[in-house]
Amino acid sequence: MSGTPRTRLRRGREKARGRREALLDVLAAGFVCHLGVVVEGVVMVVPTVYGYDPDTLYLHGSVASRSLAGPPDEVCVTVTVLDGVVLARSVFEHSVNYRSAMIYGRPGDVTDDTEKLAALRLITEHVAPGQWDYARQPNRRELAATRLWALSLGEASVKVRSGGPDDADSADARDGRWAGELPVLTGFGTPVPDPALPVGTPVPRHVADLPGTWPGRG
Amino acid sequence: MSGTPRTRLRRGREKARGRREALLDVLAAGFVCHLGVVVEGVVMVVPTVYGYDPDTLYLHGSVASRSLAGPPDEVCVTVTVLDGVVLARSVFEHSVNYRSAMIYGRPGDVTDDTEKLAALRLITEHVAPGQWDYARQPNRRELAATRLWALSLGEASVKVRSGGPDDADSADARDGRWAGELPVLTGFGTPVPDPALPVGTPVPRHVADLPGTWPGRG
Repeated sequence: MSGTPRTRLRRGREKARGRREALLDVLAAGFVCHLGVVVEGVVMVVPTVYGYDPDTLYLHGSVASRSLAGPPDEVCVTVTVLDGVVLARSVFEHSVNYRSAMIYGRPGDVTDDTEKLAALRLITEHVAPGQWDYARQPNRRELAATRLWALSLGEASVKVRSGGPDDADSADARDGRWAGELPVLTGFGTPVPDPALPVGTPVPRHVADLPGTWPGRG
Repeated sequence: MSGTPRTRLRRGREKARGRREALLDVLAAGFVCHLGVVVEGVVMVVPTVYGYDPDTLYLHGSVASRSLAGPPDEVCVTVTVLDGVVLARSVFEHSVNYRSAMIYGRPGDVTDDTEKLAALRLITEHVAPGQWDYARQPNRRELAATRLWALSLGEASVKVRSGGPDDADSADARDGRWAGELPVLTGFGTPVPDPALPVGTPVPRHVADLPGTWPGRG
């Protein structure tokens, strides 16, 4: 983001545990990722859903496979969570509060059926918690038609900016302008039933109970 | 996104006007973009704020200039607006409703001071409407320290998925499961004043009046 990140987590063995926790925090709070890949010499940035476990990010390979025969050599996957807008006294000091993770590596195809099911479950539960057990799970044909990529979380960086504006000590602070942070909240609205549903089909509990708003999922 | 986009706007002269309107709709609804760039052979995807007019996207060059001496040859900038989660009867048919724009091109440095001010105003007003006139505007030194890129909107594509799940006609529809769309809403929370502010500094009207939630800005 523009502006100076107040906190930047840098590489270093001594910070490995904190880094991993920060990375998993971003992956938990994020919803979609942006996959950067070079196809025939052209950079493409494609939004897609994801799932993860502590070591691996899983992506739907179908997203990019329209353009790619197999997994690409190297990708960068970025997950960004928007937490707020920083309103400073001066335009120059305006900024954005956010958490962002960049993961670099060479994705591999997930080919084993058991691993594919596990990866698809992680993706489904990240996007729509509770749906894996509620919806009909993939059959053999569907699983065969699903391409999944696995990307190690081993090479990743996290950047975070939080807090208020940085110009409280500047001459601008004497001018009486309001300054602070405007939090950004995201949440689920009222579920919209498929018009084809039989009248009276109940909204399942796990859907009805999803939070109306929560901070920083964008 | 995974799944089949229900609507895809393809290139073609006859659709140019509709495409441009769809592109501007995504840019208006989005908040941050993801800039894809190749730096020394490595793909990077960097989140950043943006502004735009009907012909041009403006970016803070500072974002990537830590890694780049000048504007890169070619970039892809993607703006994604999340509108909802599509809950189908089967896991396989789950999807995401979204609007996404991908803009390709070679960004140029904005060097003229008048153009820089105009571009910075577009970026500021996109992220924090009303702040350009409220906050102190950039002075000569700040403007010189601000690097801005301009990217033509001439080469862009838009993808949209909307509506409910696609398995209303499938055998799965007989199993009685609920299916539909879960809208995603984003909005601003209560403004958090900078702790350094004098007590009683009023929240300006343009900040207090920002919408609490609005559809599909994520």
